Amino acid sequence: MTALAPGSTIGILGGGQLGRMLAMAAARLGLKCHVYSDQPGPAFDVAARSTVGAFEDAPRIAEFARGVDVITYEFENVPLAAAAAAQEWAPVRPGPKALAAAQDRLEEKRFISSLGVPVAPFAAVDRAEDLEPALRAVGPEAILKARRLGYDGKGQVAVRSASDLPAAFAALGRVPSVLEGFVGFEYEISVLAVRSLAGETRFYDVPLNTHRGGILDTSTVPSPLSAGHVLRAQDIARAIAVALDYVGVLAVEMFYVGVKAPGPLIVNEIAPRVHNSGHWTLDACTVSQFENHIRAVAGWPLGPTERHADAVMENLIGRDVDAWPKLAAEPGAALHLYGKGDPRPGRKMGHVTRLAPKAPGSV
Amino acid sequence: MTALAPGSTIGILGGGQLGRMLAMAAARLGLKCHVYSDQPGPAFDVAARSTVGAFEDAPRIAEFARGVDVITYEFENVPLAAAAAAQEWAPVRPGPKALAAAQDRLEEKRFISSLGVPVAPFAAVDRAEDLEPALRAVGPEAILKARRLGYDGKGQVAVRSASDLPAAFAALGRVPSVLEGFVGFEYEISVLAVRSLAGETRFYDVPLNTHRGGILDTSTVPSPLSAGHVLRAQDIARAIAVALDYVGVLAVEMFYVGVKAPGPLIVNEIAPRVHNSGHWTLDACTVSQFENHIRAVAGWPLGPTERHADAVMENLIGRDVDAWPKLAAEPGAALHLYGKGDPRPGRKMGHVTRLAPKAPGSV
Repeated sequence: MTALAPGSTIGILGGGQLGRMLAMAAARLGLKCHVYSDQPGPAFDVAARSTVGAFEDAPRIAEFARGVDVITYEFENVPLAAAAAAQEWAPVRPGPKALAAAQDRLEEKRFISSLGVPVAPFAAVDRAEDLEPALRAVGPEAILKARRLGYDGKGQVAVRSASDLPAAFAALGRVPSVLEGFVGFEYEISVLAVRSLAGETRFYDVPLNTHRGGILDTSTVPSPLSAGHVLRAQDIARAIAVALDYVGVLAVEMFYVGVKAPGPLIVNEIAPRVHNSGHWTLDACTVSQFENHIRAVAGWPLGPTERHADAVMENLIGRDVDAWPKLAAEPGAALHLYGKGDPRPGRKMGHVTRLAPKAPGSV
Repeated sequence: MTALAPGSTIGILGGGQLGRMLAMAAARLGLKCHVYSDQPGPAFDVAARSTVGAFEDAPRIAEFARGVDVITYEFENVPLAAAAAAQEWAPVRPGPKALAAAQDRLEEKRFISSLGVPVAPFAAVDRAEDLEPALRAVGPEAILKARRLGYDGKGQVAVRSASDLPAAFAALGRVPSVLEGFVGFEYEISVLAVRSLAGETRFYDVPLNTHRGGILDTSTVPSPLSAGHVLRAQDIARAIAVALDYVGVLAVEMFYVGVKAPGPLIVNEIAPRVHNSGHWTLDACTVSQFENHIRAVAGWPLGPTERHADAVMENLIGRDVDAWPKLAAEPGAALHLYGKGDPRPGRKMGHVTRLAPKAPGSV
């Protein structure tokens, strides 16, 4: 359990904006990064070394792993075989348990339920015959989600009645899926936890999240969640992290459903990585989620998670980024652009965090 | 005077820690960096592209300049011929005027004096015969400094009496020098100004600087300088920036001499670049000196310069860096390591900034 010395190399699987911000956080600590991704991406511009290779290419991944001191990832769909090949040569953190739990929506819900933590009602759908019984179990309204490879609202279809079921299943390509009962909630929050190699867990303040077109739009701290419910939310995240032998930043999205059973909080999904709803920590905290993730996977002590300001993070999606000259001139706005070329619809191009003095006693 | 669009490339001359922190600030804004230096250095690990080449190799510098959108530098000893070769292809910011003024201690003092700004008494020493008359003019105690290529206390020798003069001149290699009268001062401060392409000037809060072995040791905000004297210090820095048609961050080191003539402040030296005494802005400000320098040279609007915390920045020199595990665990300490291998004496390996809530009304 020794800490990696400065000058060591962190391997990062995935070359997107999360990998980019991880690489910059590692650089701040004198750690080098080698980014491996299936195509050149924003992380390549800030890493000491980059490799383009398929995530399914286990021998290539193993070669990559031989040259680094620890491996982490910016997305949860790293193939388990690739993670296993890497693990032969360097520790993969968070470990394969977390990857396995997060990349299959059915396994994820079973796992979380097994901890006694409420989730939306769910039922497995492996074939067309499963659809109607599933809807009877979780209905009357539901969302059909592919078990694997979903993010940002992709791989899911709303189901308002039994007659929607065949088209919904077809839209997902008839892949193994899970039908989730629709849950009326007051708002969504996320818990950003970080767990060290030594097993210490710290939490950032809980943001309130809003979405636009299935993609995160804003994250705001403080959220309206009461101090007592914040503690409950953190307990849930801690239980998940401990059960997964987790190392690094873990994001747990939750719905606040108020007094309704099985409230007050139900878990929507987990992300075994740094998370878009934690980007405000770059500007409102001394040590960001990215640096604390790097500290954890490198075996370092965790840094502080307190925030010094209230913050509203807003994503710049697609053409939103065209507003950069105005945003750059806005007082109190911290602008982050990811260096991506083509601002196509739905693409995360950057974000802006607006800071304000911290309200006294806010959580 | 159009702003460079995100995705444009900043050329940085020099690959040390200042170039590294500039490159990371540029990346935050979606700008790419191409670093050019005479040897691989810490900036290479975080830049989209790097080139090893001599600073005296004007054709190579011109080739580098052809591929970037603007050029800046992390040190003031870029040869003027190289800057001129680059300027044929891309704007060099800050411009050659600032470079010329900063790389010759005699020219620098003449220039600052010409603005009516007090400096220590000085006299040119071109040959041995100049030594005694110079000491009579500025003495009785003085410091003999090489006109060119000095930094971190290098290229200077204290002179306590006329009998020291021949050895001092020999120690400098009998190069053209300047003899500066010793000035008793209460403390040193620096003004960190940033001037945009459009001519707007903003200031960070003024740090108090202490030195150890001729190298900056700590920078502390707030300094004990009164609000009135802060304005005076800023006026001096603004006058220098305007006279140099300056674009970017300009650091002006000053001595506070109290009521003694020609007080209260005399200029020690200027640095036409981001400055070690401004490293605390990375953690105590929404937009750091590095990002504001990049914004200025890219023609962007300046970001805010206010600090949200009191701060003490301490350099980690040589073996100081061995304390990193303790520093990483210290609450409220922001640790920055530069990724350098060999912690030899006098080498800047990193810095740590300790933050504390801002005292009300402090400047």
